[in-house]
Amino acid sequence: MAIEIEQPSVGLSKVAVSKTHGEDSPYFAGWKAYDENPYDESDNQSGVIQMGLAENQVSFDLLEKFLEEHSEASSWGKGAPGFRENALFQDYHGLKSFRQAMANFMEQIRGGRAKFNPDRIVLTAGATAANELLTFILADPGDALLVPTPYYPGFDRDLRWRTGVKIVSIHCDSSNNFQVTPQALEAAYQCAESMNLKVRGVLITNPSNPSGATLQRSVLEEILDFATRKNIHLVSDEIYSGSTFSSPEFISIAEVLDARDYKNSERVHIVYSLSKDLGLPGFRVGTIYSYNDKVVTTARRMSSFTLISSQTQHLLACMLSNKEFTENYIKTNRERLSKRYDMIIKGLKNAGIECLKGNAGLFCWMNLSPLLEEPTREGELALWKTILNEVKINISPGSSCHCSEPGWFRVCFANMSEQTLGVALERIHKFMEQRKRKET
Amino acid sequence: MAIEIEQPSVGLSKVAVSKTHGEDSPYFAGWKAYDENPYDESDNQSGVIQMGLAENQVSFDLLEKFLEEHSEASSWGKGAPGFRENALFQDYHGLKSFRQAMANFMEQIRGGRAKFNPDRIVLTAGATAANELLTFILADPGDALLVPTPYYPGFDRDLRWRTGVKIVSIHCDSSNNFQVTPQALEAAYQCAESMNLKVRGVLITNPSNPSGATLQRSVLEEILDFATRKNIHLVSDEIYSGSTFSSPEFISIAEVLDARDYKNSERVHIVYSLSKDLGLPGFRVGTIYSYNDKVVTTARRMSSFTLISSQTQHLLACMLSNKEFTENYIKTNRERLSKRYDMIIKGLKNAGIECLKGNAGLFCWMNLSPLLEEPTREGELALWKTILNEVKINISPGSSCHCSEPGWFRVCFANMSEQTLGVALERIHKFMEQRKRKET
Repeated sequence: MAIEIEQPSVGLSKVAVSKTHGEDSPYFAGWKAYDENPYDESDNQSGVIQMGLAENQVSFDLLEKFLEEHSEASSWGKGAPGFRENALFQDYHGLKSFRQAMANFMEQIRGGRAKFNPDRIVLTAGATAANELLTFILADPGDALLVPTPYYPGFDRDLRWRTGVKIVSIHCDSSNNFQVTPQALEAAYQCAESMNLKVRGVLITNPSNPSGATLQRSVLEEILDFATRKNIHLVSDEIYSGSTFSSPEFISIAEVLDARDYKNSERVHIVYSLSKDLGLPGFRVGTIYSYNDKVVTTARRMSSFTLISSQTQHLLACMLSNKEFTENYIKTNRERLSKRYDMIIKGLKNAGIECLKGNAGLFCWMNLSPLLEEPTREGELALWKTILNEVKINISPGSSCHCSEPGWFRVCFANMSEQTLGVALERIHKFMEQRKRKET
Repeated sequence: MAIEIEQPSVGLSKVAVSKTHGEDSPYFAGWKAYDENPYDESDNQSGVIQMGLAENQVSFDLLEKFLEEHSEASSWGKGAPGFRENALFQDYHGLKSFRQAMANFMEQIRGGRAKFNPDRIVLTAGATAANELLTFILADPGDALLVPTPYYPGFDRDLRWRTGVKIVSIHCDSSNNFQVTPQALEAAYQCAESMNLKVRGVLITNPSNPSGATLQRSVLEEILDFATRKNIHLVSDEIYSGSTFSSPEFISIAEVLDARDYKNSERVHIVYSLSKDLGLPGFRVGTIYSYNDKVVTTARRMSSFTLISSQTQHLLACMLSNKEFTENYIKTNRERLSKRYDMIIKGLKNAGIECLKGNAGLFCWMNLSPLLEEPTREGELALWKTILNEVKINISPGSSCHCSEPGWFRVCFANMSEQTLGVALERIHKFMEQRKRKET
């Protein structure tokens, strides 16, 4: 007997119907606009150029060359007895050879100035999962993490959506080049307390996304002091650490702990990934490096939900344990990013646009505040729409990064060819010229 | 100024310190015992034989042969222009070619008796993540899912740990071969209500893990009727559907929906994976197939936390879109599993042990209740320890699967060679002979 009753449709969870995934932001809306009409050098010269995607395409040839010369890294053909073991490998500790190679690579990026123990590395399918997983471990639903603004728009999803944790902004602005200050930290803490939120930690990105600058040692020390005073966690997301291309040098929180012989390091956790520095977002490789034994154990268990394909672990273990490759890659990639950065900064300057001085990442932080009709979020979004629709360039408005000062935009420069970057800069130049003519 | 204060150590979340991950169960303890002293045909003949791990190693040669003959599936060497696109591919929709191949494979397993739309397939890094993700979407913390016992011990982690959702058992027993009945469904629902828990769905595994039997069509219809009456969700975990090796044929919930022209299919969701049927747990490939548009959209967004490596998607898209391979694989794998099953059932019968009649999966459901000193959980665990320590075989006690009737054990037979299976059966035979001698 089949039963069919007229019913209200079956309900979903609060998480499912909530908007805390944050994907309605202009950050993602701009991606859709690009997808609908993507620029192509030969086929669609009037299309949208995607400058809202922090992807590294400048060093692919180095990866391809390695794979050509080392077919053992990827091939499972004849005489590859490792296939069975690899296909079955699902230990959430990850392949030992891969964790070792990751630890070495993280040390190399830091010029050997920090040491990493492979037993403290927890593998996750991307930094997205690493950040969420740490949030599940460090904070209860309704608790708060303090995050300096501007910050990566994806954090709204990663730190909040399924965890129920709140983000409270540490407001930074151009008056001191968007650096975190002790006053801003304390103000954010007070703000959380006034909302009756329990603060469980600070999460910083170093190098900063979207500002493209590394954090100074003195700032890192102040943040660590703050976390110590409040007895809260400190998460340092360092996924762009290998993409620092000019001075000052990148300083990891790991170096600060070492230099100070810091005793309470169990409050410190580092997030890393191969998506940016190696340009492999599709392979989904993220890591948590925690100084806290209990966090390592728990994160490892939790990584059952987000393990990395053993096929991919195998390939990358081969690649990253080849020191000749990694040394050359890190060096060459930096040189190329530096060249790109100079090209975009010069091009924007020629168009009359200033950027924050940056030294890392795959983007620059562009100041268009002089162009705003009104100094508000609405004014910023109006300008963003003009640039998207008329100049046909997608960039990320600062407001999508929760920047409290309107008129700043993140502009990515490594996800395209030099030629396309040239076209983008020409378009911007023309746009600025037109505006000047209108004004005079 | 460095600040170091004597403080209580920094706290973690309730999820982090809770025991709901369930990994303290004998199910996992037995794995550790095996890891410490693993049996090896040549090197460690007195070691523990692992029969607690549902892994399929009987058809690896077919995969290896395919990879040998199709190097384009795995190799990124010379003339592999697809590397860049693949390395960058992180769209949470997944590679279209892979979703299409998965849909076809799922249809093939069901003998073409069900159709799957690739646009309803959501990819996740393993079924572990798929089940958790669905739970996040279908239920709020403190709500309940009804799950027939005995069930896969990992569900305690997957459905409960991070979601805060409760599992309420639908008690099944040997009186009707552990089949779900309308009475048992209603009793579980009443039990949840008496604890003030809101029931949001029923989760079944079909074929059942650990019983190794497929669900009859009439039982599926009753469960669907129940879910309809209560207006709740129905999740059908069908990860062993391709491992049905003898009659009756596997019937998917998808076929029941089609046959009845069921109108409220938005309450139905299927979980699938390549870990069991294809023997690739290391590659972390799971899927959710939902008939609910909103669940598809939300699950896809949520899959950001658990994406499958694009390298692995590429390899499996090649493999599963080769119909010659898939047809031969499905057929041959079934024949081999059937042979293994016959071998173990016969061996156990010779030792005087009966099993539930099974037709699917990588294990049998063994009745040792006549051997219990007392018919309790404690009695069952005492016997389990004896078998682990004296017979040196790790099997999974029914109590770790929340079986309400003591004395049942899950015994895996596909994660070892035929020779090792023979050794295990000899050991069991000897153990039973010794007991008989003691008794008389």
